[in-house]
Amino acid sequence: MDKTKINETLRRNVALLSKQSERELGMMPATVAPLPSVEMVKRIVTLVKSIIFPDYFEKRQPDEAIRAYHIGVWMEELTTLLTKQIAHGLQFCEDCEANSTKAQVYGIAEEKALAFIDALPEIKRLLYTDIQAMFDNDPAAPNFGEVIFCYPSMNTMTHYRIAHKLHELQVPVIPRIITEQAHSKTGIDIHPGATIGEYFAIDHGTGVVIGETAIIGNHVTLYQGVTLGAKSFKYDENGNMLNIPRHPILEDHVTVYSNASILGRITIGHDSVIGGNIWVTHSVPPYSRIQQSKAVDVAFQDGAGI
Amino acid sequence: MDKTKINETLRRNVALLSKQSERELGMMPATVAPLPSVEMVKRIVTLVKSIIFPDYFEKRQPDEAIRAYHIGVWMEELTTLLTKQIAHGLQFCEDCEANSTKAQVYGIAEEKALAFIDALPEIKRLLYTDIQAMFDNDPAAPNFGEVIFCYPSMNTMTHYRIAHKLHELQVPVIPRIITEQAHSKTGIDIHPGATIGEYFAIDHGTGVVIGETAIIGNHVTLYQGVTLGAKSFKYDENGNMLNIPRHPILEDHVTVYSNASILGRITIGHDSVIGGNIWVTHSVPPYSRIQQSKAVDVAFQDGAGI
Amino acid sequence: MDKTKINETLRRNVALLSKQSERELGMMPATVAPLPSVEMVKRIVTLVKSIIFPDYFEKRQPDEAIRAYHIGVWMEELTTLLTKQIAHGLQFCEDCEANSTKAQVYGIAEEKALAFIDALPEIKRLLYTDIQAMFDNDPAAPNFGEVIFCYPSMNTMTHYRIAHKLHELQVPVIPRIITEQAHSKTGIDIHPGATIGEYFAIDHGTGVVIGETAIIGNHVTLYQGVTLGAKSFKYDENGNMLNIPRHPILEDHVTVYSNASILGRITIGHDSVIGGNIWVTHSVPPYSRIQQSKAVDVAFQDGAGI
Amino acid sequence: MDKTKINETLRRNVALLSKQSERELGMMPATVAPLPSVEMVKRIVTLVKSIIFPDYFEKRQPDEAIRAYHIGVWMEELTTLLTKQIAHGLQFCEDCEANSTKAQVYGIAEEKALAFIDALPEIKRLLYTDIQAMFDNDPAAPNFGEVIFCYPSMNTMTHYRIAHKLHELQVPVIPRIITEQAHSKTGIDIHPGATIGEYFAIDHGTGVVIGETAIIGNHVTLYQGVTLGAKSFKYDENGNMLNIPRHPILEDHVTVYSNASILGRITIGHDSVIGGNIWVTHSVPPYSRIQQSKAVDVAFQDGAGI
Amino acid sequence: MDKTKINETLRRNVALLSKQSERELGMMPATVAPLPSVEMVKRIVTLVKSIIFPDYFEKRQPDEAIRAYHIGVWMEELTTLLTKQIAHGLQFCEDCEANSTKAQVYGIAEEKALAFIDALPEIKRLLYTDIQAMFDNDPAAPNFGEVIFCYPSMNTMTHYRIAHKLHELQVPVIPRIITEQAHSKTGIDIHPGATIGEYFAIDHGTGVVIGETAIIGNHVTLYQGVTLGAKSFKYDENGNMLNIPRHPILEDHVTVYSNASILGRITIGHDSVIGGNIWVTHSVPPYSRIQQSKAVDVAFQDGAGI
Amino acid sequence: MDKTKINETLRRNVALLSKQSERELGMMPATVAPLPSVEMVKRIVTLVKSIIFPDYFEKRQPDEAIRAYHIGVWMEELTTLLTKQIAHGLQFCEDCEANSTKAQVYGIAEEKALAFIDALPEIKRLLYTDIQAMFDNDPAAPNFGEVIFCYPSMNTMTHYRIAHKLHELQVPVIPRIITEQAHSKTGIDIHPGATIGEYFAIDHGTGVVIGETAIIGNHVTLYQGVTLGAKSFKYDENGNMLNIPRHPILEDHVTVYSNASILGRITIGHDSVIGGNIWVTHSVPPYSRIQQSKAVDVAFQDGAGI
Repeated sequence: MDKTKINETLRRNVALLSKQSERELGMMPATVAPLPSVEMVKRIVTLVKSIIFPDYFEKRQPDEAIRAYHIGVWMEELTTLLTKQIAHGLQFCEDCEANSTKAQVYGIAEEKALAFIDALPEIKRLLYTDIQAMFDNDPAAPNFGEVIFCYPSMNTMTHYRIAHKLHELQVPVIPRIITEQAHSKTGIDIHPGATIGEYFAIDHGTGVVIGETAIIGNHVTLYQGVTLGAKSFKYDENGNMLNIPRHPILEDHVTVYSNASILGRITIGHDSVIGGNIWVTHSVPPYSRIQQSKAVDVAFQDGAGI
Repeated sequence: MDKTKINETLRRNVALLSKQSERELGMMPATVAPLPSVEMVKRIVTLVKSIIFPDYFEKRQPDEAIRAYHIGVWMEELTTLLTKQIAHGLQFCEDCEANSTKAQVYGIAEEKALAFIDALPEIKRLLYTDIQAMFDNDPAAPNFGEVIFCYPSMNTMTHYRIAHKLHELQVPVIPRIITEQAHSKTGIDIHPGATIGEYFAIDHGTGVVIGETAIIGNHVTLYQGVTLGAKSFKYDENGNMLNIPRHPILEDHVTVYSNASILGRITIGHDSVIGGNIWVTHSVPPYSRIQQSKAVDVAFQDGAGI
Repeated sequence: MDKTKINETLRRNVALLSKQSERELGMMPATVAPLPSVEMVKRIVTLVKSIIFPDYFEKRQPDEAIRAYHIGVWMEELTTLLTKQIAHGLQFCEDCEANSTKAQVYGIAEEKALAFIDALPEIKRLLYTDIQAMFDNDPAAPNFGEVIFCYPSMNTMTHYRIAHKLHELQVPVIPRIITEQAHSKTGIDIHPGATIGEYFAIDHGTGVVIGETAIIGNHVTLYQGVTLGAKSFKYDENGNMLNIPRHPILEDHVTVYSNASILGRITIGHDSVIGGNIWVTHSVPPYSRIQQSKAVDVAFQDGAGI
Repeated sequence: MDKTKINETLRRNVALLSKQSERELGMMPATVAPLPSVEMVKRIVTLVKSIIFPDYFEKRQPDEAIRAYHIGVWMEELTTLLTKQIAHGLQFCEDCEANSTKAQVYGIAEEKALAFIDALPEIKRLLYTDIQAMFDNDPAAPNFGEVIFCYPSMNTMTHYRIAHKLHELQVPVIPRIITEQAHSKTGIDIHPGATIGEYFAIDHGTGVVIGETAIIGNHVTLYQGVTLGAKSFKYDENGNMLNIPRHPILEDHVTVYSNASILGRITIGHDSVIGGNIWVTHSVPPYSRIQQSKAVDVAFQDGAGI
Repeated sequence: MDKTKINETLRRNVALLSKQSERELGMMPATVAPLPSVEMVKRIVTLVKSIIFPDYFEKRQPDEAIRAYHIGVWMEELTTLLTKQIAHGLQFCEDCEANSTKAQVYGIAEEKALAFIDALPEIKRLLYTDIQAMFDNDPAAPNFGEVIFCYPSMNTMTHYRIAHKLHELQVPVIPRIITEQAHSKTGIDIHPGATIGEYFAIDHGTGVVIGETAIIGNHVTLYQGVTLGAKSFKYDENGNMLNIPRHPILEDHVTVYSNASILGRITIGHDSVIGGNIWVTHSVPPYSRIQQSKAVDVAFQDGAGI
Repeated sequence: MDKTKINETLRRNVALLSKQSERELGMMPATVAPLPSVEMVKRIVTLVKSIIFPDYFEKRQPDEAIRAYHIGVWMEELTTLLTKQIAHGLQFCEDCEANSTKAQVYGIAEEKALAFIDALPEIKRLLYTDIQAMFDNDPAAPNFGEVIFCYPSMNTMTHYRIAHKLHELQVPVIPRIITEQAHSKTGIDIHPGATIGEYFAIDHGTGVVIGETAIIGNHVTLYQGVTLGAKSFKYDENGNMLNIPRHPILEDHVTVYSNASILGRITIGHDSVIGGNIWVTHSVPPYSRIQQSKAVDVAFQDGAGI
């Protein structure tokens, strides 16, 4: 082909694509600083994993003092990167930054980053209760190593517990980037705003959805495909959806089997068991056992063409 | 262990594995040129993302002229890589290449690549309508940044809209590689042959399947686990499956809630709402509201052993 | 912010996080050698893919002797890496390593690695039957290339067949790391302990779960969301779950449509078809056709607020 | 060896090496900002080479508009990196930064960086005169490509002309890092402070030394091992060496053959030729021809043991 | 600083630097294909080193069959890269390419590449005689490993022997890129056109220059700083330098000590020894011993100011 | 070209090159373990530079505790790599390893590595005296930063002082690899066996050679091109060169100007100055001033053709 035509096509479309439409501009923060970097957020999560599971995701190191060197280096990198990404993320919070200079934004970001650093020991403690729960619940788990190395639920919970802390610290955008990275890897979609107690277990996990305002107690277990969702949306007088509590509350020691959907701001009482493949939209009292009325409602036929 | 035994094992199996079986050879194109490269196709999609969302996935750059330098460089790399991958992919199209020289194949590939370049501004426009739709539909979306950075549906739609254009240009194999990369990342499986209008939104998304011949209008919203599938397959007189229209048509302003399955070449009339977890195999008129007759058909029992 | 405060925060938390809790220590093998490396296991799978599909995932090379050089190099790297990772993994097998020196562990690992190398030609043969099956089952598959390059089921089966062989060789942890990598990429969760015959096909795949003790014959096809799961768990007198056969048996030529759940140690007789979205907990004889009694059990209403 | 002893050795020496001695501290700037990065300075030079010789060190691109995209991207990266490195380097200039805030330092750095950007077209012009001179002088040069690709003198002159401009702009430390990188690659040691005219050629080059205050006219040629050095040093009343003009002046059209040393603030008149292997410490008039009185002053002997 | 000013400066200089001056254009080949890549040429040399010294620069592999896999892979990459680089280099040979199509150029390049491949066993043999010579000549050489790993002369000779073969095959530009890479690493500057026999040794080496038409026999040894140069240049009637034999001939078993210069088309007879630091411009007969008449011609003084 | 011919050429030469000649085998250690890795030795030196000059070659870090984390991590990596490389190097020491198992070799290597770790604080102290000396000697040195960042002599001395310590610890091959890496970068060739006191300075440096048995006191300064070499070699009754003291001794406070050669086991008395470009083969007493009798012995002529 005539090289001239290729070059013309390139130049014409470069010109078109360099222009930002009204819509595109309207979607950007009013600031001019860089936006958060998905790659850097990924690195942040990797650093937290190294800090919390050094023997598994880095190199086994039995000596505490030597291990402290490594953890110290990761912690320093973490603090630097996190401060910067929080500062970039704060552009999406129009209120809080309204009259802020760049230095003020960094000051706020630094405080949030340090608060996160101070929360790491508790995040670590919680994650080790999750390991225990997942190991205890699964007859196919032959050892803790398999849980820590392989279980998509452990990967997801690590992302979620990091993201939830940042959400509590009112960091915009970053928490969701973090949970969506886990969603992408595991098919488990937990909103960073959800509240989840200790000893939490998910088995298999693909298709699990836990909404923004869900509240989950301790010792709760979910199986694949479980949705803790909203039943319907409320609107204000202008027709805008309202972001209010709309997802279920699961009290302690609840188990929900695969593909069950629990919808709306209802409460599943403690020590209840929800059977697979069902659709629950009303609260149930403690110690309930709920399942499909006819578990196998099938017709035997012969003949092709289903 | 005796090093000799290791080396013998290696050599013996290298010899076995270097031979290509009849079956293996039968699966290869009759040509000898290289096959497409999954890594290069990944790079192609990354380049398009950089071009369409430069401030998000590259570095924010408010000056149009400076931004044009970057977009120009990505566009040039894109054109080169795409031409090459299309040429490699064309080997899988036995008809079109039948009597072609290598130069002819490259000529065809170059034309298709330029047609794709010319389609980029429209692809960009469509994707920004999708962002708008996803933002408007989700009360948990606090800003556009979160949609662009995090939403698996945005990632999927970017892959799909690229792939669909290449599918229209009759490029073999590459479009499917592109949509399957999104499927892998997001659990949303859209066939490049499906037709999707503007302002399309998916929430959560894991488990969504949209078949090859599905047709979707404007302003349509789907939730996780929705299948737009085939109900049954037709065969020709030789028992080969026929690749004919077999997936549903969704008109404008249709909403389908989670885990619903819509199967077969049926039409869901405009402005209809399909409730969650149901199985639809017949057409429904405009403005329909369809849901399970008993949303919560469960039995309360106590006793263990579900 | 005062730099001193940052440094103090870092030091304080580094000290806390360097200490390993009782729980953390209790989860580690009693040994001091390194644990398996997820990255190295990933490399091992990549090498096997290069060896089995050299023209697709490496560079097309029609000459057998030249191809043998490449396969030889990959095989050597594979043997070395696999031996090392197996040795690291053996720490999780307390029995087998009880009284072993490091040299003995490596001897055992080397034997297992060589046995795996010797199994590669058969693994390759099986995978090419799977390609054939997936191509034959899918009207949307225009050529074999699309199946090999794109189908998540092919990616999953490659991981599974590698992992299953290592599982047979009683290698701990590594097989599950391998299947979970496929689970993460494809949303298809096959336990390495499951037994699967030749000509196995999965379409779409997201959400498929195949449990540890499932047994699947030849020429079986599954669709997305199918669960071959346990119905309930058995406990020993101490309340520990028992790891016994608890997943279904599918005989030859069985097809299971999307989102069906087949639960418990039941048998689906050969040449049966299980319809979509149903829940099967009892065995069915050969040539059965099972589907929902009312495929579309929906209520037409108008009015908002689903 | 006892692992404990290794860890003790590590900890003991880590503690010793983390402390900074008085001498070490005395060598650091009084500031706390990062110091220049040798790697980043290397990247800066690479970018200038790409900008000035795009067809040779990047990819040949005949279309001016497309080439401008690439040059634009390199120029932007160059401006950013250079500003930052200059700012870091300014810490070594105690006067100029004395009362400056970080923002002021960046303002100064930015101005110097832009002045450098504005000098690039002239630097490019000069370097192309050097290519011409080296080609014209060397019967072994079959084409310009060999000069641009291979000649250590071209590599050195590129580094020198960049460094000299930054030296003129009173940037500390960075210019010397740049010339020493060329010195390391080529064995040609030109101080960034030296002044060199256009059409400058060096052949072979290893061992050439050109001192800080040397002044070289146009159309000058040097061979390997030539030193343009100081003859002696002057001291102030405190015994500190004085940094005053102490290296030679070579007027236009001077040629100096291999291993000649020209020392002190003397002038070699225009159109002179200095023969190889000699030691010149006095000025010579224009059109001089200087060489060793006895070019081969050797004794013929037989017998071993030199 | 005003961001606008930065962007203006960038745009203005991008425009200036994107234009190619008459001089710049005059230096380019008249073709439009890519020029050789310095990085690829580096890779070519690395591959040859891996092939010739696999145990030293790659991984020790005692088994011949396994080693052949590695060598095979390197050889294939080498052939591909070399063919491509030769084709790019041929643009600098105006005669030979005058009326050639791209396919013809590749045909020629391929033939030269294969001729080079066929020369590799002899290049290997020669290099092992050089190792022997360097080991035998240096009392500081405790083993062959130190010679192969460390000696700059071995590195240089590897580059030279590769480059010389390509020079014999009339490949333009590439040979010189190869020898200049060694020159840069070692300070030893051997023109690819020079002819050098077997068992050649250089000690230390920095500053050695061996000109294009030099001829060196077998068992010759040089020390650092030795020049085998031209004494003067000849011009044709148009004032262009003539590229004719102008460098010395050293017969077998000649030794030249450090910093000696041997200049012009003279012959040093076999078994001669040339002492250090002297300047030889006339031929000498076999078995000569040449040294400075007064080896230490110095004046003892006291007093400062040398 | 016929692809078959290419493949044949490849196969034929792969077969030839995979065979190891008698000579090649005779040059290898009698062991089968891997040989040292040049890349790993490079990494070792980089780590030592990071440890000794953390603010310059890594990232400035004023806090001692945080800096200790980084130094700790580098020290751990250094210990591991060094132990392994020493063990590989020990294969070249036939005596010491004669009857050793692999475990014994590693034990010896570990001891040497720890002895090196214990020497690091002293190596650091010496290098900072060298910085001081180079700064004090050079009127062109405006600050310490320029010396540490840029001076080839500092780079060389870092390599030398590391290598010399390993040489003292009787580690084979590795020390020479380390000094040759500096030789390659700087053109300064110091044998690891040489003994050099504190406050040592070299200016410019290209072409400096310091032989294996040279001994240099404190506060010595050398300029470019200085050789401290052997005058002649001694042989044993079998004609093998003897490795005995054969290089000069320079006492404290000696200065040697550019291109001077000092040859043989002679002593330059303390506080002497050796002028440039001369050849010294006899000892001189303290406080000597030695220079060429006629510094500029040149003939003025006109006429071309030097």
